[in-house]
Amino acid sequence: MAATRPLGEFERIARFFAPLAAPGALGLVDDVALIAGPPGEQYVLKTDAIVEGIDFLPGTAPDLVAQKLLRVNLSDLAAKGAVPLGYLLVTALPRHLGEEWLAGFAAGLAKDQATYGIGLLGGDSSAIDGPITLSVAAIGRVAAGRAVLRSTARPGDLVFVTGTLGDAALGLAVLQGRLAVEDAAARDYLIDRYHLPQPRLAPGQRLVGLAHAMLDISDGLVADLGHLCDASGVAAVIEAERLPLSAPAQAAVSGDARWLMAALGGGDDYELAFSAPAGVAAAVAALAGETGVPVTAIGRIEAGLGVRVLGRDGAPMAVAEAGYRHF
Amino acid sequence: MAATRPLGEFERIARFFAPLAAPGALGLVDDVALIAGPPGEQYVLKTDAIVEGIDFLPGTAPDLVAQKLLRVNLSDLAAKGAVPLGYLLVTALPRHLGEEWLAGFAAGLAKDQATYGIGLLGGDSSAIDGPITLSVAAIGRVAAGRAVLRSTARPGDLVFVTGTLGDAALGLAVLQGRLAVEDAAARDYLIDRYHLPQPRLAPGQRLVGLAHAMLDISDGLVADLGHLCDASGVAAVIEAERLPLSAPAQAAVSGDARWLMAALGGGDDYELAFSAPAGVAAAVAALAGETGVPVTAIGRIEAGLGVRVLGRDGAPMAVAEAGYRHF
Repeated sequence: MAATRPLGEFERIARFFAPLAAPGALGLVDDVALIAGPPGEQYVLKTDAIVEGIDFLPGTAPDLVAQKLLRVNLSDLAAKGAVPLGYLLVTALPRHLGEEWLAGFAAGLAKDQATYGIGLLGGDSSAIDGPITLSVAAIGRVAAGRAVLRSTARPGDLVFVTGTLGDAALGLAVLQGRLAVEDAAARDYLIDRYHLPQPRLAPGQRLVGLAHAMLDISDGLVADLGHLCDASGVAAVIEAERLPLSAPAQAAVSGDARWLMAALGGGDDYELAFSAPAGVAAAVAALAGETGVPVTAIGRIEAGLGVRVLGRDGAPMAVAEAGYRHF
Repeated sequence: MAATRPLGEFERIARFFAPLAAPGALGLVDDVALIAGPPGEQYVLKTDAIVEGIDFLPGTAPDLVAQKLLRVNLSDLAAKGAVPLGYLLVTALPRHLGEEWLAGFAAGLAKDQATYGIGLLGGDSSAIDGPITLSVAAIGRVAAGRAVLRSTARPGDLVFVTGTLGDAALGLAVLQGRLAVEDAAARDYLIDRYHLPQPRLAPGQRLVGLAHAMLDISDGLVADLGHLCDASGVAAVIEAERLPLSAPAQAAVSGDARWLMAALGGGDDYELAFSAPAGVAAAVAALAGETGVPVTAIGRIEAGLGVRVLGRDGAPMAVAEAGYRHF
């Protein structure tokens, strides 16, 4: 008798939910849906939930929880090149959370509404005898037919990422006492990167027409690039030494080279990964300069399947299973 | 020192969330948002969550849970006169629920997708160390500017409801052993009304241009009509003996007149309540005939505030606080 194991999230989606997908849902492989909007536009729809103890640490300040909730959703809109418009909010809150918590949560929402130019479109609230459970359904706009999908990478494309990788996973390691960082500014930087993702909306919007395929990195670079490759029917080769690391992340890797795995599989980066033809590299560099968000070429798309990571010596590196369920 | 009490849901919305509302969110008083759609159309957006132990009984069959989840959202679209299009789904499931539960849940979704002509647009799934927590964000279409709001009832309107009231609350009472019903068919009918709301989509769509104001009854007739009156700045007077009751509900009320409160404040009816000028009563009767859904005039809108219920003797009746948190 064959051993059985629980289905992973992607297997569950494929088996139980993909058969239910509406035409605009892109077979549920793109993490967003597209529906017709006003003339010349489409709406991009996305929903993402966060649960206390899984996606954020118990005791996290409520304004940070609110901001993370919004930003993980906005990050998906960024990856399609969309302009965010608004969101629906569902809260299931333990009864012991009082009005002070709610006031802090609403303040976090208000702050990010101002930052990102979005508004609350509606919601529902429940009591729950369990962990804080929150979800947002976000809606954005994109020029009709111009959303950048996951399924359209082509052999010969270069692979790029925005920002720096691994910071959030290292920040979580600091919070959990698994990583000691002496320098207070470096420690704060890493923790902040864990608490407050920076949805790359401006670069995402500028990449419409330049990028062939794009997604945001939430489960870890290798895992998410794997999703992009699967959806596109291509392979990717990444050169580990090209991974963009912040100074605090470089310091951690210098101390123990195994922390490089934070950049490859740590998750919670909420940076964009995209493929684009070599011919647009100059335009990509220009948008990086104009938006102030670094963009780095880290590898290439090839025919085949899967993601390979090459070390400094050019030999393939093993990357552990993506750590997107952290604690 | 004044006694303090926890804020109710409506007070929480007013204090913390209404200031965050986007222009299309109708001040969060209408439970839906409207955004521009393709030419001549608007989209209606709605989100509603259900939590095990609050909105459905532990142990409820997963296909019924799925159907209730969809239908409570579709009922809100019905109350705006919208045609449903699709939905986003968020599941937070305890790890002990296996694939059999998920297969049943997906089967329930599939059944109702076929019934209502909708599709799954995307979703997110989490594990939770707590009760089954589910939410849907539903999207529907309505002719631009034609959605029936809560805030537009006028003195002189008649108040109507679709279907029959109180069945679901009585069905829950049967399931909880608070009400004994001898007749098996009557018992099954009431329980079915609790498990499977019937979103009144066809009547709702036909009421565009006839109804002045409309909502669906989820918290109980008096509570929800109170929301409609508050939003419109009017009062309502209901005649208790006009309330439409099913034969099983009539039998329960005959046995103990206090069960009339199930129709006034029981909740989970998911019938439409609307106000319309007396001049359209014939058109309302016609749509009832054509859709097969009874529509009953139960009172009228007046100048003033609040909802009064008149008993058979014409004297005001006291109605207990809506029982929308049942157990």
